[in-house]
Amino acid sequence: MEFITGITKKDTYEISEILENGLTGKIKLNGFIHSIRDMGEFAFVVLRKREGLVQCVYEEGVSGISVKDLQEGMTVEAEGNINAEERAPQGFEVRLTKITVLTAPKEGSVMPLPISKWKMKTSLETKLAYRPISLRNIRERAIFKIQEGIVRGYRDFCFSQDFTEIRTPKLVAGNAEGGANVFKLEYFGKKAFLAQSPQFYKQTMVGVYDRVFEAAPVFRAEKHNTTRHLNEYTSLDFEMGYITGFEDIMEMETKMLQYVFTFLEEKYSKELKLLDVKLPGTNRIPTVRFDEAKVLVSEKYERKIRDPYDLEPEEEVLIGRYFKEEYDSDFVFVTHYPSKKRPFYAMDDPSNPKFTLSFDLLFKGMEITTGGQRIHDYKEQVKKMEARGMDANDFTNFLLIHKHGMPPHGGLGIGLERLTMKLLNETNVRETTLFPRDVTRLEP
Amino acid sequence: MEFITGITKKDTYEISEILENGLTGKIKLNGFIHSIRDMGEFAFVVLRKREGLVQCVYEEGVSGISVKDLQEGMTVEAEGNINAEERAPQGFEVRLTKITVLTAPKEGSVMPLPISKWKMKTSLETKLAYRPISLRNIRERAIFKIQEGIVRGYRDFCFSQDFTEIRTPKLVAGNAEGGANVFKLEYFGKKAFLAQSPQFYKQTMVGVYDRVFEAAPVFRAEKHNTTRHLNEYTSLDFEMGYITGFEDIMEMETKMLQYVFTFLEEKYSKELKLLDVKLPGTNRIPTVRFDEAKVLVSEKYERKIRDPYDLEPEEEVLIGRYFKEEYDSDFVFVTHYPSKKRPFYAMDDPSNPKFTLSFDLLFKGMEITTGGQRIHDYKEQVKKMEARGMDANDFTNFLLIHKHGMPPHGGLGIGLERLTMKLLNETNVRETTLFPRDVTRLEP
Repeated sequence: MEFITGITKKDTYEISEILENGLTGKIKLNGFIHSIRDMGEFAFVVLRKREGLVQCVYEEGVSGISVKDLQEGMTVEAEGNINAEERAPQGFEVRLTKITVLTAPKEGSVMPLPISKWKMKTSLETKLAYRPISLRNIRERAIFKIQEGIVRGYRDFCFSQDFTEIRTPKLVAGNAEGGANVFKLEYFGKKAFLAQSPQFYKQTMVGVYDRVFEAAPVFRAEKHNTTRHLNEYTSLDFEMGYITGFEDIMEMETKMLQYVFTFLEEKYSKELKLLDVKLPGTNRIPTVRFDEAKVLVSEKYERKIRDPYDLEPEEEVLIGRYFKEEYDSDFVFVTHYPSKKRPFYAMDDPSNPKFTLSFDLLFKGMEITTGGQRIHDYKEQVKKMEARGMDANDFTNFLLIHKHGMPPHGGLGIGLERLTMKLLNETNVRETTLFPRDVTRLEP
Repeated sequence: MEFITGITKKDTYEISEILENGLTGKIKLNGFIHSIRDMGEFAFVVLRKREGLVQCVYEEGVSGISVKDLQEGMTVEAEGNINAEERAPQGFEVRLTKITVLTAPKEGSVMPLPISKWKMKTSLETKLAYRPISLRNIRERAIFKIQEGIVRGYRDFCFSQDFTEIRTPKLVAGNAEGGANVFKLEYFGKKAFLAQSPQFYKQTMVGVYDRVFEAAPVFRAEKHNTTRHLNEYTSLDFEMGYITGFEDIMEMETKMLQYVFTFLEEKYSKELKLLDVKLPGTNRIPTVRFDEAKVLVSEKYERKIRDPYDLEPEEEVLIGRYFKEEYDSDFVFVTHYPSKKRPFYAMDDPSNPKFTLSFDLLFKGMEITTGGQRIHDYKEQVKKMEARGMDANDFTNFLLIHKHGMPPHGGLGIGLERLTMKLLNETNVRETTLFPRDVTRLEP
């Protein structure tokens, strides 16, 4: 009988193994042929590995294969001698003694994009059409390493604050956020929806674990085809009990952002440098009431307030600008959103029920978070449903938690792709989405 | 202007803060009223907190409220003196001096389940119907802490092996796993599917990062309503390039399981103890060929082989039993599945193309993983599609990676709920799913 006992160490090396151990002499490594520069008597064969590029030097007659038989997009196993070389990407190059082709692209195929260029200078449309290939560009893939880092930092932070990670269903019977922007489907003879948010479930789980979080896809059937809308995105949600006010949630988010940016600095400095990202300050984030914010920007930028109960995207931009100019902050919490703009589970402000105990967080003038305190009292929740013409009987399962007791609680949802977009100063959320879904785009 | 700078420390304490700091004297804490035992002159008021139960002792006339006004399901803030008490859940109790009700359940509501009992002795049907409440039971919630631990361990392991975490779309245009068990929906005038697996995307991302993983929901429109099927479940996927054979993938999974179980032992010992879980050995996992496994169990258990190209669930159970009896292993890799039972992207065994370079991992007689090497060559992939009557033009986007080059690669998908189920010796996968989705169940 044969047994598997663990990992067998390969004889090929990764970049960090070479650098950290200061390897010299002969080594073996594998990778994609990223580019070939034929200089006549020798050639630079640059290998793309997961940690970066490695410059290999090919000399005719030495490596047992003609450089003419090598091609971008091949994967190879290369052997050679490590040679310190300041001008090479990792501070070393490999003088090839042997190169073996592992796999080859389709015969006669030509790279649809110049992925080996530092900047591809290709339109977003083209990049998205060839997403599987364009992501192989060094800068493109760095975007999603930083995104990985944001989620890792987010989760680590949540664990450090005693949150429990939950996995809520995406196929649901009810429509948590209201409105028409929900995808419907047939589910064994019943009507199902794709979850617009984990709202009901995360509130429910506060009754179980006090503090819960999730980082998972949500679905919005919005017809807006803008630079900031996606029909499927990743929502970083958390929800916490025993709060003394919705300020607790803003404090938790502030602390989380501080943690995440420190985490990025520590673990993703290579990618931050590669994309020239400057991490924003989060030591103190100003807060301003919704109605006050509208007045502030209307006065400073001479803009008429058209609807006192709504915030237009242009106003968000101006609020962002105002707090950058006045307080040098890239972030601002806008609090006390109007009740009619918030869902039925939002807690109204007892001192003025036209407004809610809720907030948005704007980052460089764009909403990246919506949060607030939720109703925990059964009667109050049913009353608010009825005031909106909703039938409480449609929410029997959700109302179980109010019926059998819930602590004061609240939480938030953060749009991961928007947060990444603003952090990287991108202008379209599709740039920071691996495989974006929008009104016209369902593939690749 | 007001600013948010971080978290304000509360004056209430959590269990670990009390224990780790050996707190004595007066403290404040909050929690759910889990149970009340009125002993006449005094009463035990047990608080449920996220880390466990705290026994509080109520004496008439001391705490400013009558015990008659307290009720299970209320959340309270309690003040009192810590008193060492061996028989209490945490080794201490709190002699109440004050108790303040924060929130109360609906007037007149009665707990639908005895959640404060150690074992609820309630049918699965009832537990699921009242899931938001039944999860408040100490044992029930421990199940999903262990599940959290599995995913944390899985991710930590993947990071340690230089995998990149990806987020692939769940709304897709194509049907990766084939067959009829796919949910369809209308997507802005187009037909969309819910992803049965991240297969195309994880293979694609191997071309970008070499090694990738994801832990995310997948959707299967299976009509089976069995103890081991779910229509939405969490798939732990990874995919890796530059493999020298599909054995590399089995090795990686073995190492991962070793890591995860050690992680659980370190971080989730409380929950493992609470549920009396014995972690299975993973030092050496036997591997057996599909065809040989069939013969082995047919001989030992005198069972006729009905279909040499299929494995019935009963046969899986017997294979599990065989390797437990013969090699004392709860796990067994079954390799070389028949080609016609595997999807079109599976690599056939060059020495016998009726079989594939693939495997399942059985855990206590149940398949929890399917994996294998994938086709990387363009021509070979198109040929296999055509041999199955598929039109390669329907897969243009997927084939971009084969067209422009892919390393030898493979990977696997693990059913999280099944793994949890088998680890906890549960007999129904719904027991280890927070909010299960099956043919008849779309809520809560």
